Amino acid sequence: MKPMGTIPPEFGGRRGMLAIAGRPAAEWAALAADTPLFVYDPAIAAARVARFRAAFPGIELSYAIKANPYPPLVARMAALVDGLDVASVGELRLALGSKAAGAVGFAGPGKRDTELAAAIEARATINLESEGEAVRALAIAERLGLVPRLAVRVNPDIELRGSGMRMGGRPSPFGVDAVRAAALVRQVMAAGADWRGFHIYAGSQALDPQAIIDTQGATLALAARLAEEAGAAPPVVNLGGGFGVPYFPNDQSLDVERVGVALAVALARRGDILADTQFAIELGRWLVAECGVYLTRVIDRKESGGELFVVVDGGLHHQLAASGNFGTVVRRNYPLAVANRMGEPATETVSVVGCLCTPLDRLGDRIALPHAEVGDLIAIFMAGAYGASASPAAFLGHPPAAELLA
Amino acid sequence: MKPMGTIPPEFGGRRGMLAIAGRPAAEWAALAADTPLFVYDPAIAAARVARFRAAFPGIELSYAIKANPYPPLVARMAALVDGLDVASVGELRLALGSKAAGAVGFAGPGKRDTELAAAIEARATINLESEGEAVRALAIAERLGLVPRLAVRVNPDIELRGSGMRMGGRPSPFGVDAVRAAALVRQVMAAGADWRGFHIYAGSQALDPQAIIDTQGATLALAARLAEEAGAAPPVVNLGGGFGVPYFPNDQSLDVERVGVALAVALARRGDILADTQFAIELGRWLVAECGVYLTRVIDRKESGGELFVVVDGGLHHQLAASGNFGTVVRRNYPLAVANRMGEPATETVSVVGCLCTPLDRLGDRIALPHAEVGDLIAIFMAGAYGASASPAAFLGHPPAAELLA
Repeated sequence: MKPMGTIPPEFGGRRGMLAIAGRPAAEWAALAADTPLFVYDPAIAAARVARFRAAFPGIELSYAIKANPYPPLVARMAALVDGLDVASVGELRLALGSKAAGAVGFAGPGKRDTELAAAIEARATINLESEGEAVRALAIAERLGLVPRLAVRVNPDIELRGSGMRMGGRPSPFGVDAVRAAALVRQVMAAGADWRGFHIYAGSQALDPQAIIDTQGATLALAARLAEEAGAAPPVVNLGGGFGVPYFPNDQSLDVERVGVALAVALARRGDILADTQFAIELGRWLVAECGVYLTRVIDRKESGGELFVVVDGGLHHQLAASGNFGTVVRRNYPLAVANRMGEPATETVSVVGCLCTPLDRLGDRIALPHAEVGDLIAIFMAGAYGASASPAAFLGHPPAAELLA
Repeated sequence: MKPMGTIPPEFGGRRGMLAIAGRPAAEWAALAADTPLFVYDPAIAAARVARFRAAFPGIELSYAIKANPYPPLVARMAALVDGLDVASVGELRLALGSKAAGAVGFAGPGKRDTELAAAIEARATINLESEGEAVRALAIAERLGLVPRLAVRVNPDIELRGSGMRMGGRPSPFGVDAVRAAALVRQVMAAGADWRGFHIYAGSQALDPQAIIDTQGATLALAARLAEEAGAAPPVVNLGGGFGVPYFPNDQSLDVERVGVALAVALARRGDILADTQFAIELGRWLVAECGVYLTRVIDRKESGGELFVVVDGGLHHQLAASGNFGTVVRRNYPLAVANRMGEPATETVSVVGCLCTPLDRLGDRIALPHAEVGDLIAIFMAGAYGASASPAAFLGHPPAAELLA
């Protein structure tokens, strides 16, 4: 038997049929007309926003659409947060449907001229990823007769320790190295652009509060140093994100309150040049991962070589990360339950496999579950971020999963 | 500097602009109206089919649609091969558009009742994955008043050594364990089904001919043993596939001629009960991987921490496998070239990164290339199998890649 991650507190400890936003999982499946489906409970995301607001007073909160671009969820998030972060023209259009352009920031290392033009015309902020991109953006703005809103994305000389994806402290396709950032600020200001400040993102999916505290402190110091070098106070400093969520056994929820206290202390001591700067934190996964449940129905039960398999109608084409992303070396189990048998004792060890004709399609590896019958519903938790949109939906030609906002 | 895989011989050794099916890469990009795009040269796939025919006389060849379901390519392959293997109702419909139902086989561990009904109504062969699926298929056929075509998929007590994905010799969601296969054959025959034989798939992406020879020999012996046990001669035995292609440095092309000679010897000695059996081999990747090229345009060049980055307008949303599938531990480089500078000397070490705002979007890691300018085309080879359809196309909201059949 192998362990699995912890069911989020909003869904744990229940008995009988799992409820999502007060409605039984079976009703959600009926509403979708078919399994599998994703159900997102915006109240859980709203609770995360409220927790952030309490822990980080005065700090702007941005939602990174890439975590979950399901339009009704984006619209709901837009009403709760201060800004939206986008990474393509597709996401830009989605963001502008529910937020003023001044609250939308566009990052990404390979923006085409057409993408830059769309952002400039919309008056969204472009996070410049290189000197070359700055030259192109300025030329396009001039051609359009518009003043572009440009922030400088900085590849920090800081690494977010223990993060799932390190994005600083090393050569990077993102932003300009800190040593060249001030020069780029001067260049865009000299060209008459509306310089919006710095965007500094050092990593993601960190669960150690001290690592985030250290990174935020170093980011503040870096922003002050770069502003001094540039001789200009940044209107905004985006401190990045990096708040992780507990997917796997032994993962601990991030103590954001401790991070907030430390950030307040660091801000109280910040350099004078940052006195009037607005600070922002950009979060995707931490806001929405726990609000989503993937529901899939048991199609078959079978035994092979002494191992029990529960075969479901979903799979890695909808929820790739839970399967281990096409073969990670150490595959770990997301939290998972039999949705219509919550609280029943685990009586057997089974592997939950998807319907795809590939051995990689394994959603739960030798986990302890109550006896699941054909027709039962399996719930995979932590499915609100990097689920439907980050999976190869067309793989093997099965239909896409439905998505529902509670 | 890190090595990369070898460019397929059909594209290697050229000078100047890469030609695909005799047409310059830049023309293909213009034809698609935009980059990125996949171009498939069916002549290369046809050459693989011809090579198979020469090496395996008398053996039926099936194309596994999952490798590349692009409809025009499927239609072309259907005209060249004897059968089509499908893994969903979506693929079944595609297959029936260009092949008679008798030549279509449907495998997959999680077939729903609606999928079984669609296959039975179409008269396609269902590869039964479990006793439970057999019961459901027989009940549906009876309800429909049809005689179903049913093959028994066997989880062999054989492992394909050195294969990228092992599917035999262990507990598996695929097929029934060999020890129970004969009983299942008797059951479906007793129920009046048209028993089509055995489907035995031990693994995939193997480059060692001896491993495939050993597996095919063991599969033949297993099929004979199971037929004796069942007391019935199988009309067809699908010997599986498993033929690999060379993606990475030091990978060697599979010596299929050697495999063919050994199979002919093994067949000459096969058990009497298999005297009239038709044998089939099912291939996807080996037939089409090398016929596909992914073309993406350089958007930016940048330097960070002493590393050079070439940023392109494509990425892991189209060609996930080349990026290392969201974080494999040992990432290796697919073969890659500057399409408009073929044959020019490599003058710099660069990382080719995609346009997605994630550090995982790296298509070439510290490889030696000719100096690539903004606007140049990068070609990623070995993109004909498990490319567009096996990638998270919606991730970050960029447009899908065009696909073109030469």
